[in-house]
Amino acid sequence: MFLAASFLENSGIGLALVCAVIGLAFAAFLIKSIVSSPSGNDRMKQIAAAIEEGAKAYLGRQVRTIAMIAVVIAVLLAVFKDIPTALGFVLGAVCSLAAGFIGMRIAVIANVRTAQGATESRRKALSAAFNGGAVTGLLVVGLALLSVGIFWLLMNRMHPDQPEKALSSLVGVALGASLISVFARLGGGIYTKAADVGADLVGKVEQSLEEDDPRNPATIADNVGDNVGDCAGMAADVFETYAVSLIGAVLVGALTVGSGAPVVFPFVLGGLAIIASIAGVIFVNATNLKPAKALMGGVLLSGALCALAFYPVTAAMFPEGLKVTNILSGGVQTFSAANIYFAAVIGLLMTAAAVLITNYYTSTDYQPVRKIATASETGHATNIIAGLATGLMATALPVLCIAASIAISYANGGLYGIAIAVMAMLSMAGIIISLDAFGPITDNAGGVATMSELPKEVRAITDELDAVGNTMKAVTKGYAIASAGLAAIVLFGSYFVDLKHHLETVRHMSGADLENVLDFSLKDPKVIIGLFIGGLLPYLFSAFSMSAVGRAAGAVVTEVRRQIKLHPGILTHSDTPDYGTCVDIVTRAALKEMIIPALLPVLSVIIVAALPSGEKMLGGVLVGSIVTGLFMGISMTSSGGAWDNAKKYIEEGHHGGKGSEAHKASVTGDTVGDPYKDTSGPAINPMIKVVNIVAILIIPILF
Amino acid sequence: MFLAASFLENSGIGLALVCAVIGLAFAAFLIKSIVSSPSGNDRMKQIAAAIEEGAKAYLGRQVRTIAMIAVVIAVLLAVFKDIPTALGFVLGAVCSLAAGFIGMRIAVIANVRTAQGATESRRKALSAAFNGGAVTGLLVVGLALLSVGIFWLLMNRMHPDQPEKALSSLVGVALGASLISVFARLGGGIYTKAADVGADLVGKVEQSLEEDDPRNPATIADNVGDNVGDCAGMAADVFETYAVSLIGAVLVGALTVGSGAPVVFPFVLGGLAIIASIAGVIFVNATNLKPAKALMGGVLLSGALCALAFYPVTAAMFPEGLKVTNILSGGVQTFSAANIYFAAVIGLLMTAAAVLITNYYTSTDYQPVRKIATASETGHATNIIAGLATGLMATALPVLCIAASIAISYANGGLYGIAIAVMAMLSMAGIIISLDAFGPITDNAGGVATMSELPKEVRAITDELDAVGNTMKAVTKGYAIASAGLAAIVLFGSYFVDLKHHLETVRHMSGADLENVLDFSLKDPKVIIGLFIGGLLPYLFSAFSMSAVGRAAGAVVTEVRRQIKLHPGILTHSDTPDYGTCVDIVTRAALKEMIIPALLPVLSVIIVAALPSGEKMLGGVLVGSIVTGLFMGISMTSSGGAWDNAKKYIEEGHHGGKGSEAHKASVTGDTVGDPYKDTSGPAINPMIKVVNIVAILIIPILF
Repeated sequence: MFLAASFLENSGIGLALVCAVIGLAFAAFLIKSIVSSPSGNDRMKQIAAAIEEGAKAYLGRQVRTIAMIAVVIAVLLAVFKDIPTALGFVLGAVCSLAAGFIGMRIAVIANVRTAQGATESRRKALSAAFNGGAVTGLLVVGLALLSVGIFWLLMNRMHPDQPEKALSSLVGVALGASLISVFARLGGGIYTKAADVGADLVGKVEQSLEEDDPRNPATIADNVGDNVGDCAGMAADVFETYAVSLIGAVLVGALTVGSGAPVVFPFVLGGLAIIASIAGVIFVNATNLKPAKALMGGVLLSGALCALAFYPVTAAMFPEGLKVTNILSGGVQTFSAANIYFAAVIGLLMTAAAVLITNYYTSTDYQPVRKIATASETGHATNIIAGLATGLMATALPVLCIAASIAISYANGGLYGIAIAVMAMLSMAGIIISLDAFGPITDNAGGVATMSELPKEVRAITDELDAVGNTMKAVTKGYAIASAGLAAIVLFGSYFVDLKHHLETVRHMSGADLENVLDFSLKDPKVIIGLFIGGLLPYLFSAFSMSAVGRAAGAVVTEVRRQIKLHPGILTHSDTPDYGTCVDIVTRAALKEMIIPALLPVLSVIIVAALPSGEKMLGGVLVGSIVTGLFMGISMTSSGGAWDNAKKYIEEGHHGGKGSEAHKASVTGDTVGDPYKDTSGPAINPMIKVVNIVAILIIPILF
Repeated sequence: MFLAASFLENSGIGLALVCAVIGLAFAAFLIKSIVSSPSGNDRMKQIAAAIEEGAKAYLGRQVRTIAMIAVVIAVLLAVFKDIPTALGFVLGAVCSLAAGFIGMRIAVIANVRTAQGATESRRKALSAAFNGGAVTGLLVVGLALLSVGIFWLLMNRMHPDQPEKALSSLVGVALGASLISVFARLGGGIYTKAADVGADLVGKVEQSLEEDDPRNPATIADNVGDNVGDCAGMAADVFETYAVSLIGAVLVGALTVGSGAPVVFPFVLGGLAIIASIAGVIFVNATNLKPAKALMGGVLLSGALCALAFYPVTAAMFPEGLKVTNILSGGVQTFSAANIYFAAVIGLLMTAAAVLITNYYTSTDYQPVRKIATASETGHATNIIAGLATGLMATALPVLCIAASIAISYANGGLYGIAIAVMAMLSMAGIIISLDAFGPITDNAGGVATMSELPKEVRAITDELDAVGNTMKAVTKGYAIASAGLAAIVLFGSYFVDLKHHLETVRHMSGADLENVLDFSLKDPKVIIGLFIGGLLPYLFSAFSMSAVGRAAGAVVTEVRRQIKLHPGILTHSDTPDYGTCVDIVTRAALKEMIIPALLPVLSVIIVAALPSGEKMLGGVLVGSIVTGLFMGISMTSSGGAWDNAKKYIEEGHHGGKGSEAHKASVTGDTVGDPYKDTSGPAINPMIKVVNIVAILIIPILF
């Protein structure tokens, strides 16, 4: 047993990296099998190429814009902090961008093959779309584990006597990943929804065109949007959440437990879960279940395998349990391996809870979505009121589950227990993201099928898969925001632990002085003020991004109206619409509009920190941003998902079906939900983490 | 100087009560002058009578429903707490209900006279409507000052040696006032908006009827709603906020400074401000300025008089300054009279800030509303997105001002300084409410004018006043939520101070044990969990109330459609609609739907308090409810006000004017805004206070 413990402690990270490589290899195998499948007729290839071109052009410009900002920040970090942190920042930023690029590339390869698969059988279409998603999932997770792991080993080797240096360089990685992810989420989110909303408003509502009708000048921009927002943005976001959760667990482990096994353990969990995810992917490809059940079965299998595999490893790594420093009393508590295992299981259960609860609020099978559909009968306004109310209500169960997770995992391992629960939750990202990425691929496949005028039966298959994809997308958003909330709590804990360490070792504070600074009590008005300021950040951030989508969509509407007025032949297929101008409008708008909201959290934290007693107020800011951010994130993504599926439910023939007044009202709801669920809501995830990471980073600079 | 100090300390409350009586007498004088003015022709009297009958019938049923719940709570308080608290609860409840009744009675008297006044001149109409509002303002403020003052003197006389008893009985008054106010706000808010939304959806959107068209079967219910929601609900709400702020200041004064002058001072501020408010009312009646400027001039004059009058009184009452116990360190700080005066001025400035900022976000004169109007051109969805974004953005300045107010008033008097700032802010309620109540009176006057088919010129005058009333209503909501947020912070401070006192004197705790319980540190997971649970309360509460409005409005739509289908003659004036059924539907819906959300905060606090370490988690719950409640309250009322006026702006002829597609989109926004700004948003004010008051009350029972 002790042999196993020492082996795992010494080689655990290496083993985890091997798992990561296996994951990447399996992803490469999937890519090969996707690429080798037929990619359709010339018309399909042509459309896919147009989408790919638009997406590449956008991402290219996005990378250039972000790179300029990233270089400035890296230089600032090198000057005010140190070179390792700046290097970490660059690594995190590059990997986050790479994850986005990969996500987009795979989606563009998979969508046309999904459409082609649908001409043969539902089975083939499902496989192409799911495997495309699985590639993104496995690549993102493998990349995150590999980059953080190698960087950590390297930094430890470079600074064998200065563990602080290695730790702070890891925080640099987290900042790079998070900040780039905010940009990617915002830029991609504004792009996709401005194009989507603009295309729908003038296409569906004014001209009664179907989704993806090639006569709509905004249709290519809309399909490009799915790739740059839902694929590239999402991949960057998940890379970030995974990397930050892993880094958070390493930080908390090192600072509250000690180096060695506690630091290695999170890597091992990640490695094991990659193997479990591969098993899940194989299951989905092998089973004959219906699409929705097959996907859920894959997740369940992966989760069950994780739960099984985590136990022996935990027992082996902590044969004598763990001595954890209590962050409240400073005393030492002992937890058994079973405690730590239990904390990890809480993370897995939290994943299940997030998936099930979001599914309840956003699937057409349950009351909430059906009530919105019913409310659509009495008009646009009642549809909106019902959707907003659903989003508010949908916060209750996830927040209570998060509260319970915090309580239980804390009781089973202190702050480290929470960090392990978060890491266990995120370890499932490989398979969860396979579901999420499935959505935009099927969405695009539908677009390709319609635009290449494939037979109706083909569109029926892609529509069916698209509906499944919609629910999956909503469900994984619930997972993303819940895990982001928990991860942010761990980061806040790291802020506290790190600040304490800094004040003790650098400022040589102790006793009452130290206690006073580290108090963070609600009875201190500075903390209350901090909570208000922090609470404001998600509000301001969402206000900016919502207005950005509104403005950009308005510009698309105006452009489409202009084209149709100038060339009425577009509607009768006698004129070809100018797709490029719409692509260009949203590209410019997205890049311009993403900068202010993305820098908002960074600058706010720095300003607050620079105030007198800034470290205290900052504590309030961190928690305040988590509290309102969590509620806004959950309610926005739930409302959006529910509106989307209420429309789908009506389109299935309920309440008068397509073309009815109820349907028009449901389109309004869906359109309002677009920026809610695909721009503002998901961008809050990386935003609250940026707030917390920047706070950790500036401790040694400002305090 | 010392003579003055001792005189004010002994007789200050008496003098304040005299001011209250003067305020009531002036209100009586105004009532006489309103009643003696002509009340129009028979048709007008008949319609006013129908509205009055509906309102009285609803309020009667509401009182019976609430009375049953109130009796249960009073008995529970008498059994588990003590008789004085139960008595206080009954007094608070009765006065809050009385305030609601008075507000409604006055409005019903004033609206028909405003309509009649409009047949003569704009001047007369303005006077009738404003004086009607002023009566409500002065009566509510006078009643609050009088009831709290007399009860406080009485309890002190009954328990001369037990100041705790007198204090805890005051908390009973606060609970009675707040809880009843939640019921009144919710019941009235659901009533008014279900009727309004229902009437608009089928009347304006489907049948293209004008507002208040007598052919709309829901039109009487709609006008009744203005009275039971905007008048009765609002009056109860303001009574509550005023009483609670006063009681909070007394509690904090007694517990952190000492009996005598600190406890008397808040009463004196209230008394002085009543006289200043009377001066403001006289100014509005005497000036020849345009309506909006006249009203603002009255507020400015009252504020300036308060600022002038507060200084000599403060200097006289605290000639040697004040020794305040610091709630953080437990040490004693000394503040000068100038410090305390400055805290009071901060309250007055916060009033001005709240009014100006809300005006910016909700008036047709500025960018935010005009952007929503522009967004309406591209459809329903962009109108909604723009309105939601405006609401999110509108939280920034008020929250930053509140944060600054907390910081500055705390620096000038500790927790007592914050309490004095809040009391100074609330002391302006008399004149501010005159503006608020002006809105529903002019709204109803328009209804009476249209339904009695008075000439178009008359409707033009009432429409002009209605537009002013709309802005005033929005502006005073900003004031209400900002003051509620600050008042709740004071209540949280009282919770802490009272809990400390209780643990020291009853549980004989001290040293590290005591410090540990009273820690409320963000690094404690229990506090974080509390913040999440508390943050959830406004979300759940709003979800319930929004859905209630949606459901009840749907029922109204169905009923109106049924009537028109059964008796198509209604539309050609050959059949008379059955107004009574619509009134009955919303009455039943409002009473049924208000109960669960109103009890939610009470039960949640009790459940959390009963958990292990409940006192600590509860601290988090209190602050969490304030943080998310403040943001939701501000964003909901701002969005609602902005949507409302964007519609008004389009109706003035912009973006195509009435009947255009942009107008239809703006009606959707206005309808969504209705429950936002008149049901859920304002009901959050008393809700967050109920949470905090219940917490204070259960300290001696559960901890």
